[in-house]
Amino acid sequence: MEKFKVKFKPSGKIAEVKKGADLLAAAVSCGLFINSSCGGEGVCGRCKVVIKKGKFRTEPTGRISHEERKKGYVLACLTTVEDNLEVFVPRESRLDLTKVKDEEARLHRLKGMYSEAVDIDKGKPIISEEIFTHSPISTKIYLELPPPTLDDSVSDYERLVRKIKEKYDIPMMQTGLRNLRRLGSVLRHSDWKVTVTLGKRNETTEVVIIEPGDSSGENYGVAFDIGTTTVSGQLINLNTKEILGTKATYNKQIIFGDDVITRIVFAKEESGLERLHHAVIDNMNSIIRALTTEYSVPLNQVTGVICAGNTTMIHLLLRVDPTHIRREPYVSTANFVPVIRASEAGIKVHPRGLLACIPGVSTYVGGDIIAGTVACGINNEDKLTLLIDVGTNGEIVLGNKEWMACCSASAGPAFEGSGVSCGMRAIKGAVERVEINSKFEPKVKVKGDEKAMGICGSGYIDLISCMFKRDIVKRDGKINRDLKTKRIRQKDGEYEYVIVFKKDACCDYDIVIKESDIENIKRSKGAIYSAAAILVKKFDLKFSDLDRIYIAGGFGTFLDIDSAISIGLLPDLDRSKFKFVGNSSLIGSREILLSYDTMKKAEEIARKMTYIELSKDPSYMDEYVSSLFFPHTDLEKFPSVKK
Amino acid sequence: MEKFKVKFKPSGKIAEVKKGADLLAAAVSCGLFINSSCGGEGVCGRCKVVIKKGKFRTEPTGRISHEERKKGYVLACLTTVEDNLEVFVPRESRLDLTKVKDEEARLHRLKGMYSEAVDIDKGKPIISEEIFTHSPISTKIYLELPPPTLDDSVSDYERLVRKIKEKYDIPMMQTGLRNLRRLGSVLRHSDWKVTVTLGKRNETTEVVIIEPGDSSGENYGVAFDIGTTTVSGQLINLNTKEILGTKATYNKQIIFGDDVITRIVFAKEESGLERLHHAVIDNMNSIIRALTTEYSVPLNQVTGVICAGNTTMIHLLLRVDPTHIRREPYVSTANFVPVIRASEAGIKVHPRGLLACIPGVSTYVGGDIIAGTVACGINNEDKLTLLIDVGTNGEIVLGNKEWMACCSASAGPAFEGSGVSCGMRAIKGAVERVEINSKFEPKVKVKGDEKAMGICGSGYIDLISCMFKRDIVKRDGKINRDLKTKRIRQKDGEYEYVIVFKKDACCDYDIVIKESDIENIKRSKGAIYSAAAILVKKFDLKFSDLDRIYIAGGFGTFLDIDSAISIGLLPDLDRSKFKFVGNSSLIGSREILLSYDTMKKAEEIARKMTYIELSKDPSYMDEYVSSLFFPHTDLEKFPSVKK
Repeated sequence: MEKFKVKFKPSGKIAEVKKGADLLAAAVSCGLFINSSCGGEGVCGRCKVVIKKGKFRTEPTGRISHEERKKGYVLACLTTVEDNLEVFVPRESRLDLTKVKDEEARLHRLKGMYSEAVDIDKGKPIISEEIFTHSPISTKIYLELPPPTLDDSVSDYERLVRKIKEKYDIPMMQTGLRNLRRLGSVLRHSDWKVTVTLGKRNETTEVVIIEPGDSSGENYGVAFDIGTTTVSGQLINLNTKEILGTKATYNKQIIFGDDVITRIVFAKEESGLERLHHAVIDNMNSIIRALTTEYSVPLNQVTGVICAGNTTMIHLLLRVDPTHIRREPYVSTANFVPVIRASEAGIKVHPRGLLACIPGVSTYVGGDIIAGTVACGINNEDKLTLLIDVGTNGEIVLGNKEWMACCSASAGPAFEGSGVSCGMRAIKGAVERVEINSKFEPKVKVKGDEKAMGICGSGYIDLISCMFKRDIVKRDGKINRDLKTKRIRQKDGEYEYVIVFKKDACCDYDIVIKESDIENIKRSKGAIYSAAAILVKKFDLKFSDLDRIYIAGGFGTFLDIDSAISIGLLPDLDRSKFKFVGNSSLIGSREILLSYDTMKKAEEIARKMTYIELSKDPSYMDEYVSSLFFPHTDLEKFPSVKK
Repeated sequence: MEKFKVKFKPSGKIAEVKKGADLLAAAVSCGLFINSSCGGEGVCGRCKVVIKKGKFRTEPTGRISHEERKKGYVLACLTTVEDNLEVFVPRESRLDLTKVKDEEARLHRLKGMYSEAVDIDKGKPIISEEIFTHSPISTKIYLELPPPTLDDSVSDYERLVRKIKEKYDIPMMQTGLRNLRRLGSVLRHSDWKVTVTLGKRNETTEVVIIEPGDSSGENYGVAFDIGTTTVSGQLINLNTKEILGTKATYNKQIIFGDDVITRIVFAKEESGLERLHHAVIDNMNSIIRALTTEYSVPLNQVTGVICAGNTTMIHLLLRVDPTHIRREPYVSTANFVPVIRASEAGIKVHPRGLLACIPGVSTYVGGDIIAGTVACGINNEDKLTLLIDVGTNGEIVLGNKEWMACCSASAGPAFEGSGVSCGMRAIKGAVERVEINSKFEPKVKVKGDEKAMGICGSGYIDLISCMFKRDIVKRDGKINRDLKTKRIRQKDGEYEYVIVFKKDACCDYDIVIKESDIENIKRSKGAIYSAAAILVKKFDLKFSDLDRIYIAGGFGTFLDIDSAISIGLLPDLDRSKFKFVGNSSLIGSREILLSYDTMKKAEEIARKMTYIELSKDPSYMDEYVSSLFFPHTDLEKFPSVKK
């Protein structure tokens, strides 16, 4: 099959692909990420690129205007390579690769936040050694065995186990054939001095690795949060508990669709499941490689990997068919996944290293939420806590150490910059803060202090909150037609408000918010608020009974609480009760990596947490419809906003 | 590399081998077994063949007489293929392949013996359902799961586990990634009706296999006894406990040496361990294939395999280096081997089927002896029992349900027909019974009622016993030079007694017993008797305290107890106390296959049994030297013989 080179500008990256490959796949193959929400179906129109040189084929699409077509714009997903090509990727189509650094910075801030949380809880850290023993998923111990004699001639393996049991109280131990095959020579070549890696494998302890000499000083693990959008990993020294570094990258599965449902659909296509699986495993391997290279850790000293992720992500990671997750009655294959060898899933660490996935409660409340619950210490406190994790799905946990319940609301991807006309993720060029003066003129803060390219979730929240305060938007979400400003206009029969005109922006169009965008965000915030309200009501509680509200998720760290309350996303309570917890899932994943006792707690939480299926609650629809106002139909519920 | 065809006559089998291959290897490659004790070192001289056609190279050897050389005789192990060859294999060099049928017949008799044992124990069978529950290593259960609904939407795996736990009290369960990957579709395609194979995997229960529909009626296992000489396997219906059939074959490792020590040495050669491993796995696979074909059992309905074998055999079976077994302080890699997947060792049954090896006590008392102990029920009885398993090593167990001890004596292979000038295994053509009249003329019974070709172990015992009674052999093992008979003669400076003259035999020479043969057998019987004596004395007991003596091993069923006592192999006790138990190891292996509780008992026995190292006992040497007379230095110990 003929192959062609595709040079992408301005990055200069070159893909070598077969004739007929599509440009979206070509871009990914050389490590270039292009926006795509629909999974390469030609629907979302976000993967616009300009062909500068060479022959190609492209399908007609309404997503490219007549003007754009003349300039050479095509949709990457609908365009196939028929020649050596030169392709320009406009800024708005690029997934900013500096995101990785950005994520690190964010996670660095999170660490700050995390220690801040210590103060809040009166000196008691959320997770502490006092609460959890240090017993990582894999522990290395150095052993000096007495050499065998005629008087003490037990077998090599029994000699090893006997020594381990002298030091540790381990009722059930096992090992694999490969270790037995090497045991005799390792013991003798190392003069009976060996390092054994003990791993927690489901209910038993496994002799995972046997190395000659003393290598117990070197033992590392990686904690992952596998998000639908972002994959983050932290390299941890399992002996010292030190976080060596954190890396994050876009989930490569993005190319197959923005949300879990699109991906589940894609998984049904020919080798769809395999491609989704390889995409996330690639992500994990590059993060592991990057971290171990940077911190000079040999790959084979990484002995344990923990993953937090929603149920679909874990299915895809393990190459388990997720089909039934999206079909009524919405059943996953497994919420509790056995500990396996990381290499079985294709993860490149020590070939015998272990992989554990944090258990989930149900199809729509996965291990990421359990990890978050653990990280926030909800299970350790008397305080009644509400944890809201806002992503494409909004998951909500309510409870304290006595009881816990959860639910999931399909918030939609609006807060993640998808499904809204100028939406983008919270990366460079995103409007993240907005103020509007009495002349209806906005002042925007753009992430990275660059020219604006779009609006991220927290930007939309700020924006709508300001528009609402300035009466630009009505309580029902309609734009006020009576105001005198050039920023409010009608286009293609729909009213919109211009935030940044093209001349001031870093894109080919005005950055606007349309009535349909407002409608989308109203539905998202309504879904989350009403879900929280129903969950609280279900247990005969009121929002005012809550001692604290934790907010987690991708946009969490940029969110203005006042704005979020004023649009009715969060309940109107004393602002001091709210805390950002950022990527609580990654924090929980790390804690579990460092303490298998915490994994046991996570399992207990997952087993005991009551899952409330909102669609079955008769009052949910009423509550949801009431939430489709700014801030709410019942203004009495938002006294500070009313004022 | 050039290849040549070697046609072996009279079988007509054709081997295709590379130039330079030796004839012994060529024979094995086409399924033809040629005698060889020394492992192809040119030492034993048992692999004589005649080259009829074609060019070859051969090394000079004193094992081929001048006369034989003229006839074209060579040693197969020292002869390499340089051309297409035609090779005649004389009868005495052939390992009789009818042995397989023969073994079956023997095992059939064993079954009879086994039920005979029921009577002896006052109606209480040695192994019974009363004692052991029926819980095979792998059990199939048919489940009809309630399909998921919105009200009952636990994951597929939890649904399965929940149903299993409704029926069985299983605290710890696990499964593998492969099953999870198939689970969703299997459950739905089978309308939530599935058959699950539950396997005992070390300390946990594993969901080993998940099949659609009800296949619980078909569940089979194979119990093996992996002997140094013979590999026997029984196909068992795990539901009904029925023995479908038994097959036995020569251990293909024979080509690499007759005894474990030769094989351990061979394992150190390049790919030696791999070849030994593949040899026994080939054996097991052919037995499994033959049994499943004959009884129309699909291979993938075989879900469990149990192996009894001495420690070296188990190491080789698992491809674990046995080197250290033969070096002081004689330490094995493992006596307790974890349950693994049979396919990990290369055994072809259901790819997820399990393989368990019965644990051993020490390097020289392996799982075969523990299986024998279980089969004899020593651990269930108050009666003080001595179990003597005579093979190349003689293993002895002493005790009752309160305590047990064991030891191992290196008897040497004389009773198995090796290391004695006309020795052969107990197959067709072997002299197995002998009477000698007052004229010193013998009357022999040949196995298969054919012309004699050699003498097997029980034949030697009978022979020496008669020679001793007729004063042909003295108490010190010397042949009486004063008797007037042409059967006693001197050849090459050594006295010998002719049992069958060439004209009446099926070989090219007179069948004789030399003084050096008598010496060898005296050492073998002395080693076993003195080991038993020391073991009994060690616990302040006398032989007369024993309630029963079980004799196990390859020659057991042909052995004349009176003869064995009169030469001093067995102690002189009431004959009713002796019982043959035949291949007790295979019986025990089957019982363990059918009851994992019995495996737990076997583990307990292996852990608790005291191993006595004879070489460390100061009185062993004295006792051994005293046994080097017929029947013993101290005639008072053998009153019935004295009489």
